[in-house]
Formats: sequence, C-alpha cells, structure tokens
Amino acid sequence: MLDNLYTDSLIMAALKEDMPFGDITTDNTVKPGVRAKAALIAKQDAVIAGLDIFERVFRLLDPSTTFIRHIQDGERVAEGTAFMEFGGSASVLLKGERTALNFLQHLSGIATRTAEFCRMVEGLPVKITDTRKTVPGMRYLAKYAVLAGGGYNHRHCLSDGVLIKDNHIKAAGGIKQAVERVREHIPHTIKIEVEAENLEQVKEALEAGADIIMFDNMSCELMKKAAELVNGRALTEASGDIHLDNVREAAMTGVDIISVGELTHSVKAVNISMKFI
Amino acid sequence: MLDNLYTDSLIMAALKEDMPFGDITTDNTVKPGVRAKAALIAKQDAVIAGLDIFERVFRLLDPSTTFIRHIQDGERVAEGTAFMEFGGSASVLLKGERTALNFLQHLSGIATRTAEFCRMVEGLPVKITDTRKTVPGMRYLAKYAVLAGGGYNHRHCLSDGVLIKDNHIKAAGGIKQAVERVREHIPHTIKIEVEAENLEQVKEALEAGADIIMFDNMSCELMKKAAELVNGRALTEASGDIHLDNVREAAMTGVDIISVGELTHSVKAVNISMKFI
Amino acid sequence: MLDNLYTDSLIMAALKEDMPFGDITTDNTVKPGVRAKAALIAKQDAVIAGLDIFERVFRLLDPSTTFIRHIQDGERVAEGTAFMEFGGSASVLLKGERTALNFLQHLSGIATRTAEFCRMVEGLPVKITDTRKTVPGMRYLAKYAVLAGGGYNHRHCLSDGVLIKDNHIKAAGGIKQAVERVREHIPHTIKIEVEAENLEQVKEALEAGADIIMFDNMSCELMKKAAELVNGRALTEASGDIHLDNVREAAMTGVDIISVGELTHSVKAVNISMKFI
Amino acid sequence: MLDNLYTDSLIMAALKEDMPFGDITTDNTVKPGVRAKAALIAKQDAVIAGLDIFERVFRLLDPSTTFIRHIQDGERVAEGTAFMEFGGSASVLLKGERTALNFLQHLSGIATRTAEFCRMVEGLPVKITDTRKTVPGMRYLAKYAVLAGGGYNHRHCLSDGVLIKDNHIKAAGGIKQAVERVREHIPHTIKIEVEAENLEQVKEALEAGADIIMFDNMSCELMKKAAELVNGRALTEASGDIHLDNVREAAMTGVDIISVGELTHSVKAVNISMKFI
Amino acid sequence: MLDNLYTDSLIMAALKEDMPFGDITTDNTVKPGVRAKAALIAKQDAVIAGLDIFERVFRLLDPSTTFIRHIQDGERVAEGTAFMEFGGSASVLLKGERTALNFLQHLSGIATRTAEFCRMVEGLPVKITDTRKTVPGMRYLAKYAVLAGGGYNHRHCLSDGVLIKDNHIKAAGGIKQAVERVREHIPHTIKIEVEAENLEQVKEALEAGADIIMFDNMSCELMKKAAELVNGRALTEASGDIHLDNVREAAMTGVDIISVGELTHSVKAVNISMKFI
Amino acid sequence: MLDNLYTDSLIMAALKEDMPFGDITTDNTVKPGVRAKAALIAKQDAVIAGLDIFERVFRLLDPSTTFIRHIQDGERVAEGTAFMEFGGSASVLLKGERTALNFLQHLSGIATRTAEFCRMVEGLPVKITDTRKTVPGMRYLAKYAVLAGGGYNHRHCLSDGVLIKDNHIKAAGGIKQAVERVREHIPHTIKIEVEAENLEQVKEALEAGADIIMFDNMSCELMKKAAELVNGRALTEASGDIHLDNVREAAMTGVDIISVGELTHSVKAVNISMKFI
Repeated sequence: MLDNLYTDSLIMAALKEDMPFGDITTDNTVKPGVRAKAALIAKQDAVIAGLDIFERVFRLLDPSTTFIRHIQDGERVAEGTAFMEFGGSASVLLKGERTALNFLQHLSGIATRTAEFCRMVEGLPVKITDTRKTVPGMRYLAKYAVLAGGGYNHRHCLSDGVLIKDNHIKAAGGIKQAVERVREHIPHTIKIEVEAENLEQVKEALEAGADIIMFDNMSCELMKKAAELVNGRALTEASGDIHLDNVREAAMTGVDIISVGELTHSVKAVNISMKFI
Repeated sequence: MLDNLYTDSLIMAALKEDMPFGDITTDNTVKPGVRAKAALIAKQDAVIAGLDIFERVFRLLDPSTTFIRHIQDGERVAEGTAFMEFGGSASVLLKGERTALNFLQHLSGIATRTAEFCRMVEGLPVKITDTRKTVPGMRYLAKYAVLAGGGYNHRHCLSDGVLIKDNHIKAAGGIKQAVERVREHIPHTIKIEVEAENLEQVKEALEAGADIIMFDNMSCELMKKAAELVNGRALTEASGDIHLDNVREAAMTGVDIISVGELTHSVKAVNISMKFI
Repeated sequence: MLDNLYTDSLIMAALKEDMPFGDITTDNTVKPGVRAKAALIAKQDAVIAGLDIFERVFRLLDPSTTFIRHIQDGERVAEGTAFMEFGGSASVLLKGERTALNFLQHLSGIATRTAEFCRMVEGLPVKITDTRKTVPGMRYLAKYAVLAGGGYNHRHCLSDGVLIKDNHIKAAGGIKQAVERVREHIPHTIKIEVEAENLEQVKEALEAGADIIMFDNMSCELMKKAAELVNGRALTEASGDIHLDNVREAAMTGVDIISVGELTHSVKAVNISMKFI
Repeated sequence: MLDNLYTDSLIMAALKEDMPFGDITTDNTVKPGVRAKAALIAKQDAVIAGLDIFERVFRLLDPSTTFIRHIQDGERVAEGTAFMEFGGSASVLLKGERTALNFLQHLSGIATRTAEFCRMVEGLPVKITDTRKTVPGMRYLAKYAVLAGGGYNHRHCLSDGVLIKDNHIKAAGGIKQAVERVREHIPHTIKIEVEAENLEQVKEALEAGADIIMFDNMSCELMKKAAELVNGRALTEASGDIHLDNVREAAMTGVDIISVGELTHSVKAVNISMKFI
Repeated sequence: MLDNLYTDSLIMAALKEDMPFGDITTDNTVKPGVRAKAALIAKQDAVIAGLDIFERVFRLLDPSTTFIRHIQDGERVAEGTAFMEFGGSASVLLKGERTALNFLQHLSGIATRTAEFCRMVEGLPVKITDTRKTVPGMRYLAKYAVLAGGGYNHRHCLSDGVLIKDNHIKAAGGIKQAVERVREHIPHTIKIEVEAENLEQVKEALEAGADIIMFDNMSCELMKKAAELVNGRALTEASGDIHLDNVREAAMTGVDIISVGELTHSVKAVNISMKFI
Repeated sequence: MLDNLYTDSLIMAALKEDMPFGDITTDNTVKPGVRAKAALIAKQDAVIAGLDIFERVFRLLDPSTTFIRHIQDGERVAEGTAFMEFGGSASVLLKGERTALNFLQHLSGIATRTAEFCRMVEGLPVKITDTRKTVPGMRYLAKYAVLAGGGYNHRHCLSDGVLIKDNHIKAAGGIKQAVERVREHIPHTIKIEVEAENLEQVKEALEAGADIIMFDNMSCELMKKAAELVNGRALTEASGDIHLDNVREAAMTGVDIISVGELTHSVKAVNISMKFI
C-alpha cells in the first residue's frame, strides 16, 4: 500500500505542474454538475503498480470519486483488460486524467520490466534488486513498483546503506581501512558492502569482514570464481551492464543478488488508456 | 539555459531524497579537506541535455566546485568522449554524483531520442513535439530537453493551451458548440485545437474555426486526406502511436506537427559515467 | 468555481499570517463549544466574487461550518443586502473573519470595477481584459474575479502568452525578426502579440504575421486609423491609461480588446460587513 | 530595511506565479549575454516604499545586477523624477520587471496614501495607524509601507494584540468580565484594547482597566465627549469610516490614534515606469 | 486546545523524519487489515499536556482512529494511571507510536515542571512565566504546555514584545533614549519592558516610563529593594538563574512575575508508555 | 560537519518562529550600520556541539558575519572559557542570538550528557547509542550531537533499521515467522534486530538468525545470562531504564551496545552565554 504520507505532496505538485491556473478547455466546456464513468484499459500485457496513487489523484481533487478495482498492485493484466472502473465529476476525471496516468504508467512500467527480469531467473536462488538510479523525486514510488513487480530493494539512499566504492577505498587507504573506519562509526543495524573489481579485492573485502561484496562489472566467468571464493562468507551481488539477455547467465554464477539500473532509469511506460464509458 | 528558479527546489528535494540523513559511507571514509577531479564520459553516442542542472547540484552542495565544459546542451557526443571536467571537494563530488547523473542521464535520454525522431523527418516541413506525458515533477526539464534535442514544445499544461477532445465535445453538445464556448472565454492569446477522429470531424472543426486540428490515431492514408481537406486553413497535428518506424510516413502525409509521447514517457537514460581522475 | 487546489495554500498562509500563535482575545473570552450565526451584508452596491474562498477559510478551520448562499459569484447585490448566512463555532467565526473578508473584499472590488468598465462599453463589440498588474500572490484569484465581473483574461503570465515589446524588438533587430524567431520556437498553440506605438509599427507587425497587435498608449484618433489599417487581419488591443472616463471612446475606435491595469492593481475593497446574528 | 527573511519567499512565489515555465517572449528574442540599463521614473508625485524588495527581485534572478538609488524608502518624489538606475542582464531585467513593479507600486501606493492622511492631521497630537485589512500575504510588507509613509502600526495580527469586540463581550458576559479574563491569561507584555460604541461602554471599559479604548464608528461629537470622559486614563482610538475628508475632524476630537482601513485595503498603485535606457 | 493550524505541518514533518521511506519492520510483519487497541499509561506522577497533538498524529495517518480520554490537558495523573485508550489499525498505531509519544512526553515534561514551580510559589501574588528559550520549532507548543502546567506566557517572540536590554540601551545612548525611541515607533498595543541590573537602572527605567522592569540576575535582597522602589508604578519581573530551590525566595521579594528558562530549555520527558491491549 | 542541506530549513523556520514580523526592540534602538563583537562563554563544564549551525544562523541573516573558533564540535570546555568570538552587524547579532543559542545549548546538552555516559563505561567494550526519542524536528541534529559526545547512533528511523518488537511478533505469529518475513522483504543491506524479554525469546531470536538481539528491560543479572547464551552469535543490546547510575553495571553484563533514551529526550541545555564585547 502506498501511504498518503508519501503520495500527497507529489500529487499536489504534479497537479499544479499540469494545471497552474486551471484547465481552460474543461472549465469552458463541461458544466460542474456533470457526472461520468471511466475505465482503465491495458493496451498491452503488463504488471500493474500504482493504483493507490492513481485513485488518490482524483480523491484529492474530489473526495467523492469512487473506484472499483478488479486487480491489485503486482497483478498481471492481459492486453485489452479493463482492470479498474471509476466514477465522479466529469470535470474532475478530465482534469486528473493525465497526471494520474503519468504516475500509473511509469510505475507499471517499472513493475512490468522487473517482472521480466524475475521471470528470466526463475528457479535460481537469486534476488533482482533496484539501484539508486531513479528519476529525481520518484525514489520511493519507483522502489515500491520494483517490489510490486516481484523484485527486491537495494539500499534506499546514501543514508541507509554502506557501499564502499573505488574512491572511498582510495581515500581511506585500502579496503581494510575503509571497512574498519566505517564499521566503527555507522549504526550497528547496517551492513557493509564493498565494491570489488577483481579477485584480489574480493579477498581483501572478505578479510576486512565485509557483509556484502559487489562484483562490479565483472565477466560472468570471473563472477563465478569470485562467488566460489566467497563461498557463503558474505552476500554477493552482481552489478553493471546486466540486461534481460544476460541476467540468467549472471544468475548462474552463484551470486545472491543482481542489481539492475534499467529497472528504474530507463522505464518504458505501460500503455494504459482511460476510457470514458 | 535552465534558470535556477526552476532547478533549485527540484535539486534540493532530490538531494534530500538521496541523503535524508547523511552519506554514511563517504562521511566515514573521506576527510573533509580532500579535493578531487572528475570527468563525464559518454558511454554511447548521445545528445546531451542538462549540464546546467548537473553543475548546479554540486554548486548547491559547495559553491566552490568548478567546471569546464567542452560542449553545450544540445550538442552531440560520440561514445568515449569526455565532455566535461570538474573539480571540488571529494566528499561533495561523491555525495552529489548519483543525483546529478540521474538528472543528466534522464534529460540526455530525452534529447537523444528527440534527435532521432528529428533525423527521421529531415527535410520535411514538419515539427516533432512533445506531449504532457512526462514523469511527474519533470515537466519543465523534460520539455527543455526536447528543445535541446531539436524538437518543439506542445502546450505545457492544461492552463496554456486548449485541446478539445472527445469528452469535451460530448459535454458541450458538438464541436461547433465546444469551440464557440471556449473561444468566448479563453484569453485571446491562445489558439484552439480540436481532436478529430475522422474526416467528418475535421470538417466540423474547420467550420467551427479551429486554429489547429489534431488527427487522433488516424491511419496515414486518412491523415493524408485530412491534410488535403484542411489545405492550410488550420495547423494540422498527427498524434497517437507514432514511433521511429512510422514517423516519416506520418510526416509525409503533409501534417504540420507530429506529437510523440514516448519522447518523455519512455525515456532510455543515456549511459554517462562520472570518472574520478 | 475556485478549486481548493488554488485556494488552500493561500488560505493557510493567510491564517498563519493573521494568527501565527493564536488569537489571544478570542481564546480567552469565548468558550470552545459556543455556536454562532453570522451574515454577510453588503454596505454598498457591488458585484460579489470570492464566495468559495470565503467559505473555505472557515471550513479549513472547522469542516462543520455551514453556509447558505443567496447569490453566486458574479451576481450584483444592492447596499444593505444580506447575501450569505452561515453558522459554526463562535470561536472559529471570530478567528477567520478578517482573513475571509480580506479575500472577499479584494476580489469583489475587482469584480465590481470590472463590471463598471463592461457597462461603459455595453453594446460595443469589445472585450475588457485584465493585465499582469496584480498584487503578488493573487494572480489566479484576481483573474478569476475579472471573469466574475464580466471581463476577460489576457495572458496569465510570461509563460502562456507572447507579447513582443519595444525591448524585445530592439534585441531581435526589428519586428519582423522578433516575430519570426518567436514563431519558430514557441508552442504552436500560442498566438503572437506585438506592441506597436505608431502606424509604421502596426504595418510591420501585420507584415510579420502577428496574430494580435497592441496599440500602446496611442490616442483614440490614432487607434482608429490603426484599427482601420489592420482591418480584421489581426486582433487589435488598446492598452495604456484607459480609465472609466475614456474607455467608451477607446472602444469606439474599433479595437477588439481593451486591457485595463487598474482592474487589479488599484483595487478598492468592497465594503462588506460580517454581522453576528 | 526589509530583511530578506521576509521578502525572499514572497519574491520566489511571485516569480513562479509570473513565469511558471519560462518567459517565452524574452527567451526567444534576447540573447543571454546582452546587458541593459534601466531607470525607474515616477509618473506622479508619490512617496516611495519597497526599493529593497524591488532590488531583491532582480538579485534573486541574477546576483550581479547593480543599482544606484537617488532616494530611500519614505522619501517623496515628484512626477517625472528618475529615482533609481540599475543595470544587468537584459533578459533578467525584462523577466523581473512586472514582478518587481507589482511590489513597488503597491507598497508605494500605501506609503503615498498614508502620507496624505498624515498631512491632513499635521500639527495635531494624533497617530495614523493601519489595520489588519491587508491583501492576504502582504501583511508585513503593507505595514512596513505604512511606516515609510509616516504612519504607525496597529497590532500586527490576532496574536500580538488584544481587541475585545462586541462578540467577545457578549461571550464573556460583559466588558468587565472580558477584560478580567483576558488580563489573567495573556502575556504581561501586551495591553488590552476594548471596542466601545457609546459612552456607557467607554465608562465600563475604563472601570475594567482597559489600556486602550476604541471608539467604534462614533460621530465626531460623541468621540469628543468620550475622549473628555477618558481624560488620559487610557489611550483612545477612533475607528470606522474615516477618510481623507473627515480625518482632521476626527483628530480634533482629542483621540490619540486614528486607524484607517483604506491605507492597506484599497491601495491605488503608484504609477511608476521602468524605462530601458 | 491545540488547533490543527499549528500542529499539522509539525506532525507531517515529524512523521517524514521518522519514516522517510516506510516502516520496514511493520510493513513486513503486520497485515493491513489488523486492528489493535492501546492505552497510555503514566509511569510517573505528571501533569499531562499534548493530548490533541498525540491524537492528531494517528488521525493524520488514519482518520478512523478513535480515542477515549479520561483526562484533559493540564490534569494531573498518578503513576500507573491509564489516562487514554484508543483503537485503530495495528499498523498505524505502531507507525505513529514514537512520533506521537515524542510530542506528548516533551510537552508533558514542560507542564509537569511548570506545575512544580507554581506549587512552590502557591499563595504568593506572582506569576511563573516561560521565556524564548525553547527547542527550535517547538515555540508554540512549548508555550501551550506552560499554560497547561498552570504557568503564564512571556512574550512569544521578538515581534510581539519589547525587551530593552543592555546592548539596546548602549546603542540608543541610555535607558531614557531607548524607551522613547521604542515608544515612538511600536504599536500602541504593546508594553515596554526594560532590563535593569541595579537600582540606578531601575530608577532610570521608571523615569523613562517603562511599563515593566526586569530585575536581571539580581540577588533576592536587591530585588526586594528594587520592588519597593518601583512600588507598583510598573510591573516587576525576576529573571536569571531561578530554579525550584530558590523560586519561593524570589517570589517573596514582591516581584509580579518570575520568568524561568528551564521550563522549556531543559525539559525532562515524562515517562509515558503506550501499551497494546 | 553539519551540512547546510540539513540546517538551513530548520534555521529559517526557527528565525521566522522568533521574528515573524521583525524585532521591534532592536529595529527601533540599533542603527543598521553599527558593528559589534561578541564571544561565547561556557558557564559550566561541557562538551560543545552545534558550532556550525550556530554560525549558520547569523550567516543566513548576514553573510558578512565572521567567526573565530577556539574549539571544534566534540571538544570539552571548562566553565568560564570563551570558546568562540565573532563580529558583525550589531542588529544581526541581537536578532539571531536566541535562535542560535537555542540550537547550540540543546545540542551541547546532548553531547555533554553523552560524554558522561561514555566516561562511565570507559574501558569496557561497549557502545553507548541514542534512540528515536528525540524532540520532533531535531532527529538529525540530535544524532549528530550524540556522535560529537563520543556516542554512537542507533537506527535513524523506522526506514533504515529493523526492530522486531512484541507486537510485530504477535502479529507475525512468533519470532521465527517475523524474522523470516522481514528477511525475505527488506534490503539485503540491513540487519535484523529482535527485542527479547527473557531467555526463551533470546533463544528463539538466535535460532531465527537475528543479527542483533535487544535485551528489553532485563535485570543486569538476566542480561548477563542472556549475553552468555548469545555468546557472540549476534550483537547484543541493553535497553530500558538505563541511567548514569546503572550504566556501568549494565555494561559489565557483556552486552555490545547500550541504548539510552535520555540522551536526547531529556536534554539539559548547556549554560552558554553570548557576551557582547
């Protein structure tokens, strides 16, 4: 469920972005009292995410708008399916249409793509996760959509997870030093992840006691060796240039987690149409 | 140029989204005084958009960050090109990296795709425009990127342009009535666009004095007839399911404008890497 | 109708401006449970605008406040008329009184003045419009009140309308160049207006294909010639120093539009009293 | 001096109100690098207020804008005087012009009207004050302008001053009870003002120990008697329907303070022109 | 009563501070539909303040949460008392618990401490007041809690009360000059308080017509003399290093007001437990 | 270092809270141009935290204010030490004084108390951490001050750490089920902490694979047994009613972490005086 705490300010900003001084077409053609009904139709197979925020757009414009859902977030719809019906002021439905769809189509795009990745690794003991590569402002919603699509979340941001990269290692004077300094100061509730580019670094990370080791842009061959080297002493994560065509190969290297930037940075909006009945 | 008036509140929100309570990795590995240099490298051919906002992310964190641009927004870069160099506090560069790239990669994605559409219609008297199908919060930036890519802007929102659709027509009792009511009430500075699905509606729109007629989801064959029917008495716009593979065909029907939703609703982030030197 | 989307943040700011830390008189004299009834009385003939925002002030303080309207926005009331009655918590009525009246009296002032201008040009084919000369923060409400008074809106702001003035012309190198550059880049949904100070400029604007020509501070005699010169090939607008005493003369020059700054920049608040019953 | 603490958020809101998505005229006619100079010319005799906020509008758009003031807030200018010169980016001057003038003309209107009232009571021991009847959002600026015009401020809002009116008296069960309850609970730093409509109420207020007694809509004759009755034991304030034509008569009744709503609720904008040089 | 006008933005900020991206424990263990009941138990004797804001935290998360109060703000509870019961979504109760308690425990801490000070001076004609030494952001709530504890409010802020201190006196050239300048310019609704460190200054303040004289860090002996010197011609206030162990002695010097910083700057949170039933 | 990203909006809110409409004392006694110097004097032994935000208050009012620090955050000062000197506009120093001190005294109070707890457990392998019991709005600053005092941070909020309590266990149907559900869904970067009230629960938590086990309100005797039972297989945390007088005893039970609510919920402001020189 998407709590209003997270959606309302985004929706208000989006509505003001799309209607800073009224809807000059609707305001001059549709009389205030007219009621209408509409349905959401999937124009392609998809996994839907964002029904809560879709509804909330109209409810913020007019609390009396009513909705009947035939599915819930995370469910799959086939092309041509009418998966939600709703009714309310015709004027409100017209004014909120684009804003509500912009949210729903973007989030469903994320969920649908995530589901495709998950299907590619079906049966393998691996989790597909997102990254921090989200469109600014959409982080929370985007990560919600990844969950809806069957994926998992990586750290939310720079504050709730440690990822020691190349430049942190240089600045600290080595993996060991970096891990020690970080472990000494962060909350005890957070694990430490280290980015490794080769087996040497994987070893160093293990010795430093890293909880998670990210295999950064390694070949599948190398990842396999690295995973064997780690051998369960840390969680392992594959990262970098992983797409639908190579994700299964990556998964078969034995890594625990595969993080995929394109889930959220290159979203193909799901084609959904709002049809007035 | 992207004025700070439009970027600063978006950037502050994005930074707080990515660092609500500090960067626990960098804060514990990089000492405050350390300086660093970095470069932006294109990992693919692309048209770049968003250099102003990219710079501004770091300048808001630390005004002393300095930048050297080798290109300007709207210019094309080849894979492998280092198109910008900058220097500043190592800590600030690490903290701002993802947020700055999230803006730049999204906007460059829009510009690059727009440029591809423009190239497809090269030599034809037609304009490629965007739509209101943008990721919520990014409307102004997205439309800026379309310009950078060589495209044109459609109306910005529901307040600055009239588009009389199906449901407005029904509510008003006909195209004629809808156009008249709208013309009577809107500012005299704004044109009236009417959506038409067939030749009959095109005729009605013309008779009602529409300034612009949108051919909504018409076949190319039908659009050609419609454009001939209009014969310069109104601007004509093709809209609906137009992609790279059919845009030239659409352009050849004689329409003045082709609006393309995917320019902004299905953005493929440009692969740009920020490399520390 | 004034949508809550536009009024709520203004109202909250106004209430906090007037009660940053409570109403120390009411809080210490009126017990929370006490109910009261009040009426709005016009102390002068007026056209009323702002009943929605007036009501909303009290509803935001206490949703249970109830209202009976005897008129709607845009209607005329005679001195002495009680045009609205309402009831609610005595404390809430006292706390919201001044804020609610400040909105209503300002907006009714605009509507009333607009109606006077409209009456002066009755029977003539001309529209009275507002300008961008509004009290900062009140643009949307002020333009709403102009409509309520029977007037029309000019462009809302710098983003939704083109007005090529003196300095734009100089910077572009001439009217022709300015119009061409602008036409090339703005959305196709927006018309181009050019400010002209003499017949020469009117001619140039016409030749450049301006959609609207503003006669800037011309004498009525000159405007008449200019309107004849244009002869329907563009919309014509009179602007500059037009007041109640010369608006009919201006209207008789044949211009299509007369824009009047004082409608919104020099508002005389309508005298309305909120009387407890 | 108008502190940025109070002006910046108002200015940012005003600029976004006037340019929510750019200035489509200036952006397409004036090249970024072009510099310009401008002057402010009074088109009528006036007292100026708001030079700080006028400057700040441009400085927020571009900190490099420079200003030369020939006068300070509160000074009088004669028609035709160029009282300020400034230079900066031509584009910035054009974009900020209307917003900056909207502030300056409104505030100067308040200062000019206030100065007229003050001149009417010259030589008499009376203070002209404002009220809470300000355009929503402008309270602080409006009261600043009253000071600039030579007037004085009444309480700022419901939180910093007590004014026991009709309905508070009824709710408390009498003037005595109202004053006692309020005195018991408010900060010891604040005086108590009571509204009286007749001599009986003046007496009661005096006996209750009111610090200030407001003569509400009394005739001048009655006010004279009331002032004699009070005889210095409390401050006295005349309020209600006091205009330029009767303010001196009111002042001669012996009251200490005259509060005038129209200073801020019915502002006639001062005619000021920004001329490019 | 704490009006929502003052609480809602604080609560929303507090909830986002405590749940910027969800409650990852509750979201993954408690199903949405589960209902729960809880009670507030005092784990110490205390005076309670903040029940309105406590309730509002949950109501903003879910308007259907219901509450039964056994006491009102300002009442005393004994250790072990269950003073409020409430029910709602289990998930919402868990998510709002800490935020709601953080408000309630802080405010009850202020009320409880204030009540202790008041009890120490029982029977003496003196008021215990707060100061401006509050945790940033909590000013209004903190001062509300002082009232709930039986104390009184000093000025709310720098805008609603005058306190002429050491440095103002120096800048103005003496107490007399400072008082005169201030009296000339402030609203007539506000009293003037002067800080005095010795009898000489007390005399000067009296002669200057100060309404209130603050005895700043004087010994009780000196305060007694000062109070005698003033002899009712001004209100007198004791300030500086007054604690529970010396407040009665200070009160017996004859001052009218004792202001105590620690009421709000050194708050000991009341131990309140929220127990699920 | 406290980044401006986290301090500026808090400071602006605090300044507006303390000066919603000017400083009526300073504005009327101190001339704009007057400069002043001041020093911060510790009136008690203390550990200082908050110098960055103290400075920033004045810099936001006037960027030209200058500071000389004799110490840095986290350092100890003895009673009577002048640890910072600064100079600027007298008016600005007076206006910002209380707001700046309110931040500094609260944060130094936290740091000082934290340092006392740390000293009590000196030599023992245990970390003193904070909790989420902070004054609303101050979470980030309060946790920063704990670090400055030598303590450590627990989870920042409900989003970045898991703590499975009583009610989560009940809702999930047991510790095992709760841990499994949570582990399945949270980011792999976050550890799982379980609250245990007795040895049975400790065992269950261990078996469920909890990363951290919190001993909730256990006696020291019981905690010792529990720590032995855990024997390094999980981190152990003591929580509940731990104060200066029993913290060493708790530390000697062998737990790894002791979390102390009073560090941030019952802050005694450090007595710091800002003295004008």
